[in-house]
Amino acid sequence: MTQTKQKTKSSQAKPVSRRNLLSSVALGAAAASFATPAIATGKRTLKMVTTWPKNFPGLGTAPENIAKRIHAMTDGQITIKIFAAGELVGAFESFDAVSTGTADMYNGAEYYWQGKSPAFSFFTSVPFGMTAQELNSWIYFGGGQELWDELSSNFSIKPFMSANTGVQMGGWFNKEINTLEDFKGLKIRMPGLGGEVMRRLGAAAVALPGGEIFPSLKSGAIDASEWVGPWNDQAFGFYQVAKYYYCPGIHEPGAGLSTGINLNVWNELTKAQQAIITNACMAENESTLAEYNYKNASALETLVKKHKVQVRSFSPEVMAGLKSTSETVLRDIAAKDAFTQKVYDSFKASMINSMEWGKLSEEAYTRARREY
Amino acid sequence: MTQTKQKTKSSQAKPVSRRNLLSSVALGAAAASFATPAIATGKRTLKMVTTWPKNFPGLGTAPENIAKRIHAMTDGQITIKIFAAGELVGAFESFDAVSTGTADMYNGAEYYWQGKSPAFSFFTSVPFGMTAQELNSWIYFGGGQELWDELSSNFSIKPFMSANTGVQMGGWFNKEINTLEDFKGLKIRMPGLGGEVMRRLGAAAVALPGGEIFPSLKSGAIDASEWVGPWNDQAFGFYQVAKYYYCPGIHEPGAGLSTGINLNVWNELTKAQQAIITNACMAENESTLAEYNYKNASALETLVKKHKVQVRSFSPEVMAGLKSTSETVLRDIAAKDAFTQKVYDSFKASMINSMEWGKLSEEAYTRARREY
Repeated sequence: MTQTKQKTKSSQAKPVSRRNLLSSVALGAAAASFATPAIATGKRTLKMVTTWPKNFPGLGTAPENIAKRIHAMTDGQITIKIFAAGELVGAFESFDAVSTGTADMYNGAEYYWQGKSPAFSFFTSVPFGMTAQELNSWIYFGGGQELWDELSSNFSIKPFMSANTGVQMGGWFNKEINTLEDFKGLKIRMPGLGGEVMRRLGAAAVALPGGEIFPSLKSGAIDASEWVGPWNDQAFGFYQVAKYYYCPGIHEPGAGLSTGINLNVWNELTKAQQAIITNACMAENESTLAEYNYKNASALETLVKKHKVQVRSFSPEVMAGLKSTSETVLRDIAAKDAFTQKVYDSFKASMINSMEWGKLSEEAYTRARREY
Repeated sequence: MTQTKQKTKSSQAKPVSRRNLLSSVALGAAAASFATPAIATGKRTLKMVTTWPKNFPGLGTAPENIAKRIHAMTDGQITIKIFAAGELVGAFESFDAVSTGTADMYNGAEYYWQGKSPAFSFFTSVPFGMTAQELNSWIYFGGGQELWDELSSNFSIKPFMSANTGVQMGGWFNKEINTLEDFKGLKIRMPGLGGEVMRRLGAAAVALPGGEIFPSLKSGAIDASEWVGPWNDQAFGFYQVAKYYYCPGIHEPGAGLSTGINLNVWNELTKAQQAIITNACMAENESTLAEYNYKNASALETLVKKHKVQVRSFSPEVMAGLKSTSETVLRDIAAKDAFTQKVYDSFKASMINSMEWGKLSEEAYTRARREY
């Protein structure tokens, strides 16, 4: 998936302390034409920083939708003001901004905070990890949320799962990948643990911002790049500069995106407001996956029929190599500290459980429906 | 899935008019120890009738959870009083009860109202139809909700998708099913369109209430029965009276369960309350699927390892026959009236779109993860 174009403006941006925030809310209310000041009616505005360009389809519209849901359900008591990546702080500074109280909330992907703890990666997506449905099962019923709460509370943050892209595509390639040898020397844009898998297979993996992918593919600076899936990829026009579209994306088989809120802010909210935020995130988590699946399906058809994109599947040899390398990467990550190992063990146990059921239910069904 | 044990008590049950409802709310408030009467604080209680036994895992706990979500988010302004099947009206009378205003809301499965219009079946699940994720894509983004609103508004009802069981199991069998011939004369408990598929293959399909399945399998009155999936089936102990557990359940590949609200009641609510109900249903839709997937996976392991259940897959010949018969049944249903045809066409177009994407994404991924 994405590490979006992010100009870090934090050096220029004036940090807003909680004291300043409160005064500016009061000032805004006094200037507005409401009959009673905001403070008396209990209205408040929360600042949400995001790791996405404003209104970027799916990724960037999810925080907008969450804000709308919360505004509607609180009858306007809570307004969420959204800052795109770079507007208040840089994308990767979102977590620190909320941790320190510069912002109240963030919307992003947990693996962007892997420098804080490698365990965060498991709450987005890891190579050969869980699908969206499996991730939700783990988070909501398999102990995932409790581990995540424990991890994030060290940084004064309460986290929620609030969107999912579903299975991503393997990416756009200007050379065919038939054997594991073909990864050697391949210049590929792939961030995170997927990039680490590529490096171990001999590729030169880089983490370009989204906006630089198109010119880099065009100029030949890179041979290949992953992004998200048909819906998001079509918007960037990659079909004009890359020949082959590989599937499936084993590096992010169901990327969960998240919303975090500063724990002090969370604790100041009423129980009803807490329930509203919790439900808004769950509803948006449901809605984005439905939207990605619907729009990916339509975009794929356009890419294949209109733009004559050649969709390719990774060969069994390539898939087997990607899988064993991924498993080694995950084991290495898990071994970094006791807490990450605990998260990995919980994640893996839940995934193995889900896999057996999935094989007999959804996978068996969709395969039969297609083949017979 | 289920048509639950339902004693129709409507003949004995005193119908509660909206006038009576209001007086009883006022009476309750006066008797309670609140400082201000309910009417003054805007508090109200809504009656929800359901098609499920009280607190039945998944199916029956979903409406309880929806009520809790709404109560918490409205800070107690809306309390939902839940009636199990038969407590106020019989399960299948839930729709009429809400349509006429005897009750304010229902929680059930739309295919129970197929006597009102055959189109309702498509909003739960149909044989060889959509998975849970595909159904959500159609409802939320593919025009499904708009068609459903149009259909239900004829009965003064506003409908919401509010739970999903995921792919169900094919059922419990006391004889092996190897060829289509084996369905001939088979006494099987299977309601709805799945039952119609069975009948066309020569089986004697019946629609027993859930509570009668165990004794009927034990006595040999039936040879086979579907119910839901490992989690719900284990609770009923079917493994004690049936030899083979067949998968996958092609008759209900992702049963969506629903909440309906009387349109007059809906229109009386504030915009914020409407948003809260909408989000509560979406959140519970997300949560139940995660719960079914998590608990089905665990229950399947127990059934196989502890109870030595023999899990069997339908053969290619059987699957092909089930599929072609299902398609004929759906075409026949759709031809019954113009609106049902319109719903079927929309449903089918969305499903075909989803299938192509699903083949390259989730199905390709889960298969590769398992096989390599």
